[in-house]
Amino acid sequence: MAKKIPHRLYLTEEQMPTQWYNLRADMKEKPEPMLNPATGKPVEPQDLYPVFCEKLAHQELDDTTRFIDIPEEILEMYKNYRPSPLCRAYSLEKALGTPARIYFKFEGNNTSGSHKLNSAIAQAYYAKEQGLNGLTTETGAGQWGTALSEACCYFGMPLTVYMVKASYEQKPFRKSIMETFGASVISSPSHTTEAGRKILDANPGTLGSLGCAISEAVEKAVTTGGYKYVLGSVLNQVLLHQSVIGLESEKAMEILGEYPDIVIGCAGGGSNLGGLIAPFIRDKITGKADPRLVAVEPVSCPSLTRGRFVYDYCDTGKITPMAKMYTLGCTFAPSPIHAGGLRYHGMSPALSKLYHDGYMEAVAVGQTKVFEAATFFAKYEGILPAPESAHAIRAAIDEALKCKESGEAKTILFGLTGTGYFDMTAYNSFQEGSMSDYIPTDEELEKGFAELPTIPGIQE
Amino acid sequence: MAKKIPHRLYLTEEQMPTQWYNLRADMKEKPEPMLNPATGKPVEPQDLYPVFCEKLAHQELDDTTRFIDIPEEILEMYKNYRPSPLCRAYSLEKALGTPARIYFKFEGNNTSGSHKLNSAIAQAYYAKEQGLNGLTTETGAGQWGTALSEACCYFGMPLTVYMVKASYEQKPFRKSIMETFGASVISSPSHTTEAGRKILDANPGTLGSLGCAISEAVEKAVTTGGYKYVLGSVLNQVLLHQSVIGLESEKAMEILGEYPDIVIGCAGGGSNLGGLIAPFIRDKITGKADPRLVAVEPVSCPSLTRGRFVYDYCDTGKITPMAKMYTLGCTFAPSPIHAGGLRYHGMSPALSKLYHDGYMEAVAVGQTKVFEAATFFAKYEGILPAPESAHAIRAAIDEALKCKESGEAKTILFGLTGTGYFDMTAYNSFQEGSMSDYIPTDEELEKGFAELPTIPGIQE
Repeated sequence: MAKKIPHRLYLTEEQMPTQWYNLRADMKEKPEPMLNPATGKPVEPQDLYPVFCEKLAHQELDDTTRFIDIPEEILEMYKNYRPSPLCRAYSLEKALGTPARIYFKFEGNNTSGSHKLNSAIAQAYYAKEQGLNGLTTETGAGQWGTALSEACCYFGMPLTVYMVKASYEQKPFRKSIMETFGASVISSPSHTTEAGRKILDANPGTLGSLGCAISEAVEKAVTTGGYKYVLGSVLNQVLLHQSVIGLESEKAMEILGEYPDIVIGCAGGGSNLGGLIAPFIRDKITGKADPRLVAVEPVSCPSLTRGRFVYDYCDTGKITPMAKMYTLGCTFAPSPIHAGGLRYHGMSPALSKLYHDGYMEAVAVGQTKVFEAATFFAKYEGILPAPESAHAIRAAIDEALKCKESGEAKTILFGLTGTGYFDMTAYNSFQEGSMSDYIPTDEELEKGFAELPTIPGIQE
Repeated sequence: MAKKIPHRLYLTEEQMPTQWYNLRADMKEKPEPMLNPATGKPVEPQDLYPVFCEKLAHQELDDTTRFIDIPEEILEMYKNYRPSPLCRAYSLEKALGTPARIYFKFEGNNTSGSHKLNSAIAQAYYAKEQGLNGLTTETGAGQWGTALSEACCYFGMPLTVYMVKASYEQKPFRKSIMETFGASVISSPSHTTEAGRKILDANPGTLGSLGCAISEAVEKAVTTGGYKYVLGSVLNQVLLHQSVIGLESEKAMEILGEYPDIVIGCAGGGSNLGGLIAPFIRDKITGKADPRLVAVEPVSCPSLTRGRFVYDYCDTGKITPMAKMYTLGCTFAPSPIHAGGLRYHGMSPALSKLYHDGYMEAVAVGQTKVFEAATFFAKYEGILPAPESAHAIRAAIDEALKCKESGEAKTILFGLTGTGYFDMTAYNSFQEGSMSDYIPTDEELEKGFAELPTIPGIQE
């Protein structure tokens, strides 16, 4: 093609999206409604008010409004790090010897180091707009906690982060960065909540879990005046905010005269993937185009590729509403792989539905192959990816190598969600050859499925 | 002004500079020549061949060629992370309530985390072009070692990094990242060199020093077939490569219809500052404009503000040529502040001359005030700065506050050289209130000056 494609394309501020895109509005079959665990009835916005901001509760349940204006104050903070670049991986293509054209949307150029900031800003803003006194959240790997700390600091909103004790102790720098942004970081389980005390009494030496940290953060929010709880993935509102990733990608590709044959994203709770593929899913649903959309998950936590499409709790503590999604069961405890952000038992209900209905594919990859791809990518493209992001790199390289065999010059787009500066322990273990893949046995999965909830008349 | 100025302006690839600018060509009085320590005579290119690549030796001594073409292969790698953004600090301005317009050129959006990559790529490329077998270097804080590892990996050039033992032990992740890029990292002092063994014999428990690491790296280079030594600051060649920072800034400001009243950069060896101010120094020399150019150094290592403008060795080991520069004496041991990149006893000879001739100002700031500025900046601009870069932020904020008092709407441009992800220990110590400033006494400085070299007929 005649057009000279730059290595890195940045949209101008004027070209940035000013509305989020709600992909549920275009789904022919909507995701099943969330259910209130107490009544088994579909959740109404006011059921969510005790935990969530009102505006966010409405965004959560709104599956008909196609575009939602991004408030000016949010756009203002977005402009401090967005638009993010659409990158052409020329060096990687050359190193692979592939005829494929590889693009990636890079979300790591901000201090939080990942795409999580796109939703953190929105959630902190709505909390401020509602006049709240503060927010609580949990963090595992630390990307979400960092992003929310940054956003809350900007809007002057107090924040308490429950950080899984294992991370708290292994990643002291993640804690420091959150504290630099003024957040109060508590090792979970803690004595600050009933839930934490109960767990500590039963098992004083525990290193905590994401499920426990969620329970503490929710308890703290509902028992502290003017506090609400926020979450960085899985939820519909998060996918909505993350649609800026996909909208910018679509626009940038349009400027380049390109359209992806394959769109690839890593998938934990689905926040990045749902945002990246949003406009392309739309094209697929409306028949405008037919790109392949690929979710990449770790073999150790294979919710899409080996999970069940059923109603389940969103948290381990079974206090959240139930959602119909691909799940390994909320008590499934994934092995401690280095991509902590992908260790979630379920998957965004909207993405689950799209996968179920055949709009999306899924592959599972082992972490050794993932770090091999990460290191190769770093060598040629000069970006050190987060372990989570590297799952997408692995799949993109595999597709590019298939193109090399077939001679097809496909256009591949993948999401590079973040950087790996706080994950050097993982890179170390890869270099030392001491990294292993963890593939759960069928028996282990069965244990998780055995604890799936029963809901009279809906799921027996 | 009518023009809408974006938060972040990225030049297009076509607008990127294709030549480096050699500021010495425009200096009315050139910097004094480097002297060969054995003969006391000015250094010739061939004197440098045993240590440096030939092309780089010529760049080092060329003070007449104004523009030098950037080779295509270097431009290709530059395009993987350049152009870097020129940022308008709207949020910071608002928080300060200043009428000043604050711009910063952000060089931290690459995996090495700093501007060092601009010269690392050039040096690795010329090594490859000359068909060398490998390179050696030293690293203190780790930014230069990381940048060079990344560049050498890209060009397939083996690299050995001597890392000061104190850093090697305190910053294991810096080591990991270099190893991820294939570099061999050795704790210095080591048993791999005569220089290292001598120091270890005399003081087995030593934590090393930059001077010792330089000695080891140089020895390794000259005693290993086909190896040369490279350095990330101080040298003329480095300032030349770093001119891309200033050239891009100048171009971007021109597009915005702006011109800086004040240009501010942190100064250790001068690599960033020399690159940033290059085109503006030129305007000043030629009389086209008269911006204030400000070097910011730590009070703990005040080479410009309290040093002497004399001939001195560039290294502690006294094995390099002597250069006329502002220096505290090559045996001066600065306190272990957190901005390791600014702990250098001397200053780029070209910048020293410009400072001496009145083209540049200098201020010294204490690290507590620096981290206060860093934290404030992070809160509003969402970028966590490296401690080195934060020196420039401190000075920029001080200038902006002066504008607030005087009501002047000055245009301030500063260089944000890098990110602080590997410096969280420093941020911790600031938050805990345990950070102190170190101001050397006059007696301490006199000890350093006492060891300045004497050169018959030149410096008695």
